[in-house]
Amino acid sequence: MTEVELQIHVKTDGNLLVTPERIKLLKLIQKNGSLNTAAKELGISYNKAWKLIDAMYAASGKDIVEKLRGGKGGGGATLTKYGMLIIKEYDAMQSMVARFTEQFNREINF
Amino acid sequence: MTEVELQIHVKTDGNLLVTPERIKLLKLIQKNGSLNTAAKELGISYNKAWKLIDAMYAASGKDIVEKLRGGKGGGGATLTKYGMLIIKEYDAMQSMVARFTEQFNREINF
Repeated sequence: MTEVELQIHVKTDGNLLVTPERIKLLKLIQKNGSLNTAAKELGISYNKAWKLIDAMYAASGKDIVEKLRGGKGGGGATLTKYGMLIIKEYDAMQSMVARFTEQFNREINF
Repeated sequence: MTEVELQIHVKTDGNLLVTPERIKLLKLIQKNGSLNTAAKELGISYNKAWKLIDAMYAASGKDIVEKLRGGKGGGGATLTKYGMLIIKEYDAMQSMVARFTEQFNREINF
């Protein structure tokens, strides 16, 4: 079976803001409340995870992830409102793209 | 300016056949008649280029690139008919995706 997948990449002024990998990372941070756990689940290093977050900050000029200090386990991470907005917008795009891809898959000829 | 790009990935039975990078490689092979030159222009190693070609063979069961022996310069590489078909189909998909992406870009809200 031949299947087409369209991967969403978003750029702001030429700088890469959103990729499927970055969205996975944000969702895992939201789920786990920890960047470390999120990075592990995604199979990337803690440093690589911070690099992805930094690149999103560089592209948008907005904080995406907030570090939490203290509390049980001594701190963690959570998404900012903007971080959550990015997920929401991506998911909305993703469902439109999915409908387009479905139609597309009926027409391809490899 | 915020811009959305949709990257086409094609899988056959779950195996990745086509990515934007692989298509760039095929087009450069077609242009240069040489895998070595194509790899250099793409900024990847000769080994990495062969790995991409091998992965396409593994996914499709069909030869994509043909080695040419002898002649001026002592051999080179050319695309098979199937390799050329892949480019043709990809470009057709790409123009449909481009039209969709244009409309999409008018609606996004980051």
